[in-house]
Amino acid sequence: MKNEPNFSKISSGEKAVGETSSDDSFTRMEMKDVRDFLIDHPVKEFLDEFKKLHPADQAEVFTELTNEKQESLIQLLTPEETARVLEYLEPSQIADILEEFERPIVSDILAQATPDVAADILRQLPEKQVAQVLQGMEDSDDVLGLLVHPDETAGGLMTTDFPVVREMVTAGNALDLIRIRPDRVEDIGGMLVVNENGSLVGLLGITQLALARPTSLVSDIMVKKIASINATKDQEEAARVIEKYNLKFLSVVGDMNKLLGIILVEDVVDVLEEEATEDMYKISGMGGEKLYGSLANSVFRRLPWLYINLGTTLVAALVISLFEGTISKLVTLAIFLPVVAGQGGIAGTQTLTLVVRSMALDEIQPGRGFKILIREIALGVIHGIALGVIVGILSWIWKGNPTLGLVVGLAMTANIFVAGLTGAAIPLMLKRLKMDPAVSSAVFVTTITDVLGFILLLGIASLMINSLI
Amino acid sequence: MKNEPNFSKISSGEKAVGETSSDDSFTRMEMKDVRDFLIDHPVKEFLDEFKKLHPADQAEVFTELTNEKQESLIQLLTPEETARVLEYLEPSQIADILEEFERPIVSDILAQATPDVAADILRQLPEKQVAQVLQGMEDSDDVLGLLVHPDETAGGLMTTDFPVVREMVTAGNALDLIRIRPDRVEDIGGMLVVNENGSLVGLLGITQLALARPTSLVSDIMVKKIASINATKDQEEAARVIEKYNLKFLSVVGDMNKLLGIILVEDVVDVLEEEATEDMYKISGMGGEKLYGSLANSVFRRLPWLYINLGTTLVAALVISLFEGTISKLVTLAIFLPVVAGQGGIAGTQTLTLVVRSMALDEIQPGRGFKILIREIALGVIHGIALGVIVGILSWIWKGNPTLGLVVGLAMTANIFVAGLTGAAIPLMLKRLKMDPAVSSAVFVTTITDVLGFILLLGIASLMINSLI
Repeated sequence: MKNEPNFSKISSGEKAVGETSSDDSFTRMEMKDVRDFLIDHPVKEFLDEFKKLHPADQAEVFTELTNEKQESLIQLLTPEETARVLEYLEPSQIADILEEFERPIVSDILAQATPDVAADILRQLPEKQVAQVLQGMEDSDDVLGLLVHPDETAGGLMTTDFPVVREMVTAGNALDLIRIRPDRVEDIGGMLVVNENGSLVGLLGITQLALARPTSLVSDIMVKKIASINATKDQEEAARVIEKYNLKFLSVVGDMNKLLGIILVEDVVDVLEEEATEDMYKISGMGGEKLYGSLANSVFRRLPWLYINLGTTLVAALVISLFEGTISKLVTLAIFLPVVAGQGGIAGTQTLTLVVRSMALDEIQPGRGFKILIREIALGVIHGIALGVIVGILSWIWKGNPTLGLVVGLAMTANIFVAGLTGAAIPLMLKRLKMDPAVSSAVFVTTITDVLGFILLLGIASLMINSLI
Repeated sequence: MKNEPNFSKISSGEKAVGETSSDDSFTRMEMKDVRDFLIDHPVKEFLDEFKKLHPADQAEVFTELTNEKQESLIQLLTPEETARVLEYLEPSQIADILEEFERPIVSDILAQATPDVAADILRQLPEKQVAQVLQGMEDSDDVLGLLVHPDETAGGLMTTDFPVVREMVTAGNALDLIRIRPDRVEDIGGMLVVNENGSLVGLLGITQLALARPTSLVSDIMVKKIASINATKDQEEAARVIEKYNLKFLSVVGDMNKLLGIILVEDVVDVLEEEATEDMYKISGMGGEKLYGSLANSVFRRLPWLYINLGTTLVAALVISLFEGTISKLVTLAIFLPVVAGQGGIAGTQTLTLVVRSMALDEIQPGRGFKILIREIALGVIHGIALGVIVGILSWIWKGNPTLGLVVGLAMTANIFVAGLTGAAIPLMLKRLKMDPAVSSAVFVTTITDVLGFILLLGIASLMINSLI
C-alpha cells in the first residue's frame, strides 16, 4: 500500500537540513521487516536496529506497537532520544503515552523536546499533571511563555527557538553569536533583528552577514522589511500568509511589535493538511477521527451525526407520508422518489464542496458572495434542464405515461435549481454568521433537496392526479 | 469574507526571506480599494499604486481584471515585472493570458521567470507555440531540461536554480561562489555538494562554511547524509517525504545519483493543497473546477457526474419497481425508503472519507487493509444496532404496527453494516487495482447502499407481507 521511494533511508540525526544516511543498508522495505520483527519480539533484542532509524521512522514504528511495548521501549531510551521520537508524533498521541509515566520522567523528556512541541504536549495533559511536570522541568520559561497562547492561534503554533540579534551590535559580534549557537540559523537563512525594546526591526540574512565587514552595524546591513503576524491571530491565517507570499517563515509579534517567536513553513504544512482533513470530514458529517483510534472514539464521533441525519430523513419521511393518498392512487410515483431526491443531493453537494473549499483556500474575495450565488443558480438552471428533459423522456418511455414524464421532469428541473441555490447560499450564510461553513452544510443541503424533491414530485403529481391515472 | 491580518503590507521584492514593507500605508483594506479602483478606471492611472504592491497581491488583483485590462496592464510592465506577477498565478491561468501575446514578448517574459515556473507555463501552451517561444528565449537550456520531466513527477516539480559546489574545492572558494551569486543560498541554508561526475555527495551548511578555515576542503566539512528522490517519482511522493521528515528541501537526482534539482518545502505546500482539493472534489463527484471559471467549463466538469449518478438512481428506481406490488399493498413502505437508504448513504460516506483521506495522507501501512476492513465492519454492526433499534421503535410507534417496526429496524441494521463494509472495501480494492481510490467511490457506495436499502426493506416486507397488513 505504501510508497517505497528508492532513496536511502534517512538516518537518525538533526531535522535541520534534510540529512539522510548515505548507507543503503536500511531501505524502506527493510523498515517493514524491522516493524514486523519488533511487533513479534521483545523490545530489547531490537533496540540497536531501532536506534539506527530516523526519528520520523522510529515514530512510525512506535505507533504500531502495543501500549506495553511502547512503555518498555521508552524505558530503554534516554529522555533525549524519546523526545526526538515524540516530535514526530501527534501531541494527542504523545499525551496518551506520557500519562502512564512518572512525573519526573515526563519532565525530563519534555525538557529535551523543543519548546513548541513541549507546549503542544502539555496542552493535551490533565491540568494537574501539567503543573507537576512544569515544576520538575529545568528551564521551563520558554514553554510557559508558549502555554499562554491558545492552541489554534499563531502564538500556539510558533516556536521560541530562533536566532536573534540586537540591531546595534557589529557584524563581527553577530558572527560570534552564530559560532556559539549555530543550530537554528539555517532554518530561516539568517537572524532576526530586534531593537533595545525587543521589537522586531529586520532580518539579517546569513549571506549578507558572511559578506559584510566585521565592523559594520547590524542595523546597516539588515533587511528592514519583514513580515509578521500578531500572536492572537488564528493559526490558519498565519498559514495562509506564509502560503500566499511563499515565505520560509513568519515572525510572530505581540503588543508594540515585540518579537515572540517564528512559524516555519514546515509547521504550516501540517496545519493546512489538518484543516483540509477536518473540512473533508465535516462535509461528510463526521468529527475528527483516527484510522486506528479506539472503536469507542469512532462511535462517539460518528453516531451523533448519524442520529442528526436520522432526524432529517424522518422529516423527509414525514413529507412522503403527507402524500400517501397520492401514492396509493399511483404507486409508480414511489419509484421516482430516489431519482429526483438523489440527483438534487449530488448537485447540491457539488456546489457546496466547491464553495466550502474555495472559502478554506481564501479564494472568495470580499463582496463576491452574490456573484458566486448567481453563478451557481445559473448552473442549476442549465443542469436542471439538461437532466429534467432526459428524465422526463425516460420516465415517459418507461411507464408509457407522458404526463408522468412531465411531472418527473418538472420536479427534477426545479429540484436541481434549488440544489444549486442552497448549495451556494448555505455556506455563504453560515460564513456571514461567523459559523463554520463546512460543518453540517451537507446535512442541510441534502435534507432540503430530499424534502423539496419529494414535495415537488408528489405535489405536482397531486395537482395533476386526474390526468396521471 | 477575507481575513485581514494586521501586519503591514508585504512589499514588492524578493520572495527569498519574507520581507514586508515596514510602512503601514498599504494595509489589506486599502488593497481592496486599489482593486476596486483598478476595476473601474483605466489601467494607466493606476500603474504606480499597482507597482507598490507585493507580487502576490499584484497577482490577486490581476486575476480580477477583465481580459482587456490584463492585456493593457502587461503591456505597461517590463518583462521582469510581468514574470514576477506570473509566478504567483496558476500555470493554466498564465497560459490563458500568454496565448494572446506575440511570441517574442512571451519569450522575454518567460526568460525572466524562474526555470520551473517557465517550464510549468510552457507545459500548458499549445505545442507549436512552445517551440517558437523556446527559440526566442535566451538561455533556454534550464527550461528545456525541466520540460523533459512530466508535470506530476518530482522532476516536474523541481527547480534547477540552486547553489552547488564541487567537493574538492576549498571553503574559501565556496565563499567566493556565494559572493558571486548569493540569492539562492538562504533557501536551503547552504550549498549542495557534487563530485566530479555531478553526483550528489553532501550538503555544505552555511554556518559550517562561515565557521570553517578558508583552506579546508568542502568534502571535509560537508554533511554527507542528504535526502534525495529520483526525478521519475510522483510529485506527491516527494511531498510526503518532505512532510514526514520535516525537510526544508529535497534534492532530486537522476541515474547514477546525478543531481538535477531541488524541491523546496514552499512548493510542496501547493502540491498538498491541490491534492486535498482534488480528492475532496472527486469524493463529491466532480472534476477539477475553479470558482470563477467559465460556466461552460463547470457544466463540462459536473454534468458527466450528474449523468452517471442519474444512471445509478435509475438502477435504484428499477429495484423499487420490482416491488411495486408490495408497495401497492402497503403504501406506508414508501415512506421508509429514504430513511433506510439515506442512513446507509451517510454511514458509508463516513467510512469512505476516512479511508480515502488516510490513504492520501499515507497513513495506511502495508498489509493493514484487512485490519481496517474488520474495524469498519465492527463499527457498522455497532452503528447498525444503535440506529436499527431506534428506527424500529419509532416506526412501530408512528404507524402502530410492530411488524413494520421490525422490518424497518432489520433493514436499517443490515444496510448500515453493508455501508461500513463497502465504504472501506471499495477504496481499498480500487487502490489494490492501482486505481484512484477517491474517484467515484462515493457514487459506488451510495448506489450500493441505496439499492441494498431498497431490496432489504421491500424484500423483508414482501416476505412478511401477510403479517404486515
